[in-house]
Amino acid sequence: MSFPSSSVGLVKPFPVRFETPLALTCGQDFGPYELMVETYGELNADKSNAILVCHALNASHHVAGFYEGTPANMGWWDNMIGPGKPVDTQRFFVIGVNNLGSCFGSTGPRTVNPATGQPYGASFPVVTVEDWVNAQARLADYFGIERFAAVMGGSLGGMQALEWSLRYPKRVANCAVIASTPKLSAQNIAFNDVARQAIVTDPDFHGGDYYSHGVVPRRGLRLARMVGHITYLSGDDMSEKFGRALRTGEYKFDYGVDFEVESYLRYQGDKFADYFDANTYLLITKALDYFDPARHTQGNLTLALKPVEAKFLMVSFSTDWRFAPERTREMVQALLKNQRDVVYAEIDAPHGHDAFLLADERYHNVVRAYFERVAAEVGA
Amino acid sequence: MSFPSSSVGLVKPFPVRFETPLALTCGQDFGPYELMVETYGELNADKSNAILVCHALNASHHVAGFYEGTPANMGWWDNMIGPGKPVDTQRFFVIGVNNLGSCFGSTGPRTVNPATGQPYGASFPVVTVEDWVNAQARLADYFGIERFAAVMGGSLGGMQALEWSLRYPKRVANCAVIASTPKLSAQNIAFNDVARQAIVTDPDFHGGDYYSHGVVPRRGLRLARMVGHITYLSGDDMSEKFGRALRTGEYKFDYGVDFEVESYLRYQGDKFADYFDANTYLLITKALDYFDPARHTQGNLTLALKPVEAKFLMVSFSTDWRFAPERTREMVQALLKNQRDVVYAEIDAPHGHDAFLLADERYHNVVRAYFERVAAEVGA
Repeated sequence: MSFPSSSVGLVKPFPVRFETPLALTCGQDFGPYELMVETYGELNADKSNAILVCHALNASHHVAGFYEGTPANMGWWDNMIGPGKPVDTQRFFVIGVNNLGSCFGSTGPRTVNPATGQPYGASFPVVTVEDWVNAQARLADYFGIERFAAVMGGSLGGMQALEWSLRYPKRVANCAVIASTPKLSAQNIAFNDVARQAIVTDPDFHGGDYYSHGVVPRRGLRLARMVGHITYLSGDDMSEKFGRALRTGEYKFDYGVDFEVESYLRYQGDKFADYFDANTYLLITKALDYFDPARHTQGNLTLALKPVEAKFLMVSFSTDWRFAPERTREMVQALLKNQRDVVYAEIDAPHGHDAFLLADERYHNVVRAYFERVAAEVGA
Repeated sequence: MSFPSSSVGLVKPFPVRFETPLALTCGQDFGPYELMVETYGELNADKSNAILVCHALNASHHVAGFYEGTPANMGWWDNMIGPGKPVDTQRFFVIGVNNLGSCFGSTGPRTVNPATGQPYGASFPVVTVEDWVNAQARLADYFGIERFAAVMGGSLGGMQALEWSLRYPKRVANCAVIASTPKLSAQNIAFNDVARQAIVTDPDFHGGDYYSHGVVPRRGLRLARMVGHITYLSGDDMSEKFGRALRTGEYKFDYGVDFEVESYLRYQGDKFADYFDANTYLLITKALDYFDPARHTQGNLTLALKPVEAKFLMVSFSTDWRFAPERTREMVQALLKNQRDVVYAEIDAPHGHDAFLLADERYHNVVRAYFERVAAEVGA
């Protein structure tokens, strides 16, 4: 079999079923449920070399490699995870998991509720980062993993990694929190609410039960993605990529496409509306909004992070205005005040929030060096 | 009659009709048309003390004072313009004009097209900043004003002031360009396109001819305003104003309102959808996108501004990320390279783009000092 050099190559996702309901933050006991999973590399004999990768808003368990028949559909962090890559699958056993409520195979709003024979739709509970971490801990149990060598993620994935260190301090040796934040700002929440309002006011939303109407709220999803996408890129990066370039070289004096940037954003919106579930978009943005570990310590993040035992890698990117470097520095400061072990890198990169997904050499070198230490710790 | 101290008090708008069609940038000759106008103060004998105030996206000719019966509906720049205010109506004759295509009384998409007996709707032409300035020059003719003591405006209004200095260099002695830019960035255009797509994909838009269907694309307008509003405020200002404050003190685990910032934005969106015309929103954002005086000089702004003869006041605000201080500095540099007379103030203010509408003392003092010089020049 041939596959791209240093990719994990052909992979195959599989569902893991949990019969016992999960107690959710909202008060509901939810289950049975399934989580869709992928793994790369081999779990060692003492099960000490496992790494859990947590995904962000629109990603999934498909972290690395590709599927039979669709070689172009590479995992979202394939540049980071694979043989010889910064997170080396020759040394680590890496787990990708699709979160509860997502739309890539795990139980979510699109799943048929066995109690009704209809998709959960609007009745699917609003889940939280805490709920996801609890669900992931059960997945660790399923694999017989007592303690992860590392839990890692970017953006919303970074929030899950941080929450792991809080909720299961004994079960995570290292946390890699990349391009993340200890809580959303009012502006972050505002952008999320624009996206949600675009979806719920789309007449095809039908109060969340659009499945039974044979439609999806495409207009709303498309707008949600357009506004989200703007916040993932830096202003300078957009200027560099698109500037004021015109599609046809001249103004058209109508409301079609004039500028390349319009064409790009609409295309991204259309593509997203083709595959993403609107109810999932709602609940994941809500999980983002709700995340705030210092909520129960009167906003005191240092106090909130006191239970943490893991060592940390934190990375931020200079032009990320969604979750700016200042936000990561708050976490670094709070951990240092708790005498925790933190490696922090602020990468000067032009690509805004999306930089965490890109193969920037300095960024990857920082991650590589950190995971070499992790490998040494666990004898991998 | 009693009215708030140092307000121009009770005012009354009036329409001015132009029978001769206006040659628009798009190639169409448009007319007859009307512009809705307000004036404050007295035009002096030699008609040298006139100031034209140009409005931004959602504003109008109602710049100062209030109307009979609606004392709360103050003009949008009432803190700036009035007796004893930075632009002193005891010395200047100030004209506020609603632009062609807007929805506050001037001929626009909502107006009945005499040729069809139906509202112009989708057939209303895409107008430009240049078109507005040409229409305003005809208004100056109507008042017998050969040369304005000053043309002034903030944001899109500042673009009109700048365009005046280019298009009619002999007719404008001073230009006040506040919180503006010589052209939109890709990110600015992207936000405008999200707003436009929200409107045109609203099923109630009906291709722009919603008037005849007895509906308005409220959902689209509401979203357009929500996303726009985020860009008018600074991130820090939003954090200061709203932070993560919850409406009821706790998470509700549904898609209603959790955070105060959501409630505020939705309210702003609803209010806007009650009064603003969707076709006007489309055409005004297009005028913003198209504005680019250096378009015909290969991006060379210095060359583009060569014809300018006016003196300039330029003001920017430190936390304005929509039209950041750097954008104003580009204009200042280009004017200085042309040996033009420029006063530039960068005001350290927390309120983002909206700062240009607020009564910041340092800002107002700069404007006041500048207009005292203007008054001295014209003997007002």
